[in-house]
Amino acid sequence: MGKILIKNADVLTLNESGNVLRRTDIAIAEGRIQSIGAVPSEFVADETIEACDHVVMPGFFNAHTHAAMTFERGWADDLPFDRWLNEKIWVAESALTPEDVRWGAYLAAAEMIRSGTVGFADHYFYMDEVAQVVEEAGLRATLAWCVFGMGAETEVGAGLEETVDFVQRWQGAANGRIRTVLGPHSPYACPPDFLETVASRAAELCVGIHIHLSEFPDQVESSLAKHGVTPVAFLEQRGILDNPTLAAHCIHITPEDMDIFQAKQVNVVQCPNCHMKLGMGVTPVPELLTRGVNVALGTDGPASNNDLDMLEEARLATLMQKNHHMDPVILPAELTLRLATQHGARALGFPESGVLAPGRPADLIIFDFRRPHLRPRHNLLSNIMYSAKSPDISHVIVDGQVLMKEGELTTLDEERILYEAEKRAFRMVKQNMRIVRAYDLDYRK
Amino acid sequence: MGKILIKNADVLTLNESGNVLRRTDIAIAEGRIQSIGAVPSEFVADETIEACDHVVMPGFFNAHTHAAMTFERGWADDLPFDRWLNEKIWVAESALTPEDVRWGAYLAAAEMIRSGTVGFADHYFYMDEVAQVVEEAGLRATLAWCVFGMGAETEVGAGLEETVDFVQRWQGAANGRIRTVLGPHSPYACPPDFLETVASRAAELCVGIHIHLSEFPDQVESSLAKHGVTPVAFLEQRGILDNPTLAAHCIHITPEDMDIFQAKQVNVVQCPNCHMKLGMGVTPVPELLTRGVNVALGTDGPASNNDLDMLEEARLATLMQKNHHMDPVILPAELTLRLATQHGARALGFPESGVLAPGRPADLIIFDFRRPHLRPRHNLLSNIMYSAKSPDISHVIVDGQVLMKEGELTTLDEERILYEAEKRAFRMVKQNMRIVRAYDLDYRK
Repeated sequence: MGKILIKNADVLTLNESGNVLRRTDIAIAEGRIQSIGAVPSEFVADETIEACDHVVMPGFFNAHTHAAMTFERGWADDLPFDRWLNEKIWVAESALTPEDVRWGAYLAAAEMIRSGTVGFADHYFYMDEVAQVVEEAGLRATLAWCVFGMGAETEVGAGLEETVDFVQRWQGAANGRIRTVLGPHSPYACPPDFLETVASRAAELCVGIHIHLSEFPDQVESSLAKHGVTPVAFLEQRGILDNPTLAAHCIHITPEDMDIFQAKQVNVVQCPNCHMKLGMGVTPVPELLTRGVNVALGTDGPASNNDLDMLEEARLATLMQKNHHMDPVILPAELTLRLATQHGARALGFPESGVLAPGRPADLIIFDFRRPHLRPRHNLLSNIMYSAKSPDISHVIVDGQVLMKEGELTTLDEERILYEAEKRAFRMVKQNMRIVRAYDLDYRK
Repeated sequence: MGKILIKNADVLTLNESGNVLRRTDIAIAEGRIQSIGAVPSEFVADETIEACDHVVMPGFFNAHTHAAMTFERGWADDLPFDRWLNEKIWVAESALTPEDVRWGAYLAAAEMIRSGTVGFADHYFYMDEVAQVVEEAGLRATLAWCVFGMGAETEVGAGLEETVDFVQRWQGAANGRIRTVLGPHSPYACPPDFLETVASRAAELCVGIHIHLSEFPDQVESSLAKHGVTPVAFLEQRGILDNPTLAAHCIHITPEDMDIFQAKQVNVVQCPNCHMKLGMGVTPVPELLTRGVNVALGTDGPASNNDLDMLEEARLATLMQKNHHMDPVILPAELTLRLATQHGARALGFPESGVLAPGRPADLIIFDFRRPHLRPRHNLLSNIMYSAKSPDISHVIVDGQVLMKEGELTTLDEERILYEAEKRAFRMVKQNMRIVRAYDLDYRK
């Protein structure tokens, strides 16, 4: 791991006082930030990044996704949710192979690095493949193998005990960049006693849980009818929330649900783009933050978003709340960038990341501000929050390793990934869905 | 004007049947599309664009903006609307000079070309400056000089009659790329008799009107209290809507207002990013479209958005309606792209544009699809609508002239614009607002 010197950068530290520094140097050694400002006299860089007119900030943490679903990007849009899920997504996934997952994850990794994501929480199948991609790509990740617990035929590639093996196999791998948790799908797709088993296995292993929660009103109604409590209270009763939990969505929740989140220190993940695109509603983020709940942001899978762009999630998170509350002051820029960075880092189990300060992990991204839409620079935070696009990111550094340099990926063979992933995606969709529309024909759906 | 051949492109025509073509050639001559598909044997290109793995579509029309407000980008965010307008925007603009407007418009033109906008409806001050920038940049524009009609001291640079001179001076200039209309600010900021005068002057000149309308609930309440009718009915009574009208915002409107829009063929412009950021509400776009009203999209000025990115407006337009109606099927991708292109072209008075077909103006943009977030290409329309970012645009052609080629602007000196515009923007803000924060210091807001 080499020593890196970033020179003459403007810096959004996102530290406690929110310091913004101008024309500053950052020295990186052994995966960590050694200094911001005066460079120690003994520091000799192996690599120097000239960052005049560039802005450095902590990298993004995507706290809920299904990365390999890049394969289904753009293939099931503008549909009602039940048709989207039942006729398209689950049918395509029924013939999923480990190789599909690997190439879908490669495509996702390339996209995530390009858009400034340094770590992600993945919830999918054949997770050994994803772990190998994460190791090779140089990203951080918290990985969960999705299980349903309704019999072997409902599982893709593994039952609970195989996912326990996966958790143990990869916990702390890749210099600590990989973390693992258990991944029961949701309170509506898993039986109650299975959830109890998952909860106790997680406690034994001292690992967390990543689960879907309270996405649609009918899930809440059905839980009230079947169990007499909301899905959140149901998970609490079954012991799930006694483990560190990443709860994705949490849109249709009550004040009592929020009390439970607060008491159990649940990490809530809002996925604004997905929620808007599928017409799901608005997670009460300001109310949760007021209670001290750690709210992070995620993209969800690219079949419902349709990308893995955390900058866009941050922008949508604030725009959505502003319009929902008809209040332009709510969820201001700096707070929203914290949700997309350090709140996500905390939710994923990388609590040192998400802040630029000496001693912290060197997980950071650099924006090239030599673009008309990023001028004038009255306020760097505002320009990133409200004007920047993810392709403005020129460099990405994770754990002190440069993963993108001046727009070029350093760890992945991007050209091969674009080719192989697309070829497999076409095959998967055509084979399973008997799509007559061929790639080389006029294919307006 | 040279002959251009675009080779091997995938093409979203946005024609009536929505044809999507694969690996197709487009021949351009004398500012118009000569052929799509087989190239006429006598056609000899002066310039060839190799567009394999690229997607061509009609360029965007931004139907409401204040382009020179790029100067105030990021300078007044996360504030209540009245403080934003009264303490920040109008104060800064009180010392506006023609040179400020010119450099602000240059910065906007560079940004618009980069983000695929081929034409824009501008509503601001010192509009001769903007017209000159439009002519030089090679864009299309429909320009309105904003007037208030409450006495000379309320006007910036011109009263109504001077703006009439402006309209006549620039109508049809730059090979027809420039159109002009009258620009009364709004029903709430202009006296009733002044609006009547504007309406009759527009009718005499046979030009349209560009105006703000029904942005906030209190504007409607105040109109009902003062005039006994909604702002829309008030404009109808004063004769404004008897002229071709671009009505920006139209958020707080009644079914009767929509009947008026339908009867008077008013062009309604929604500005989704601005509406969300300022917490203004949701323009009833699906209801207006059902009545046959021409709904276009706009960015509004960069002080409230904070950019001029029409692809982002299109995405927000559909996401906003989907979540508002909790209906993922509403405002699908193709329809939304039509709002951002041909509906805007029609609203601006360039009705031939916004469609790719032989004989139509060559106003088109090219996306480079060699990016992970644009693969796989199951559905090109979906990938542009839900995944693409404006920097993925590699080429822009307006009126048969290449304004951007492989990411390089051809008509504007971008480096000089970034430098000059930012320098003036800092001066304007510091001079007027006594901002102590200097550019070279730590300048956290």
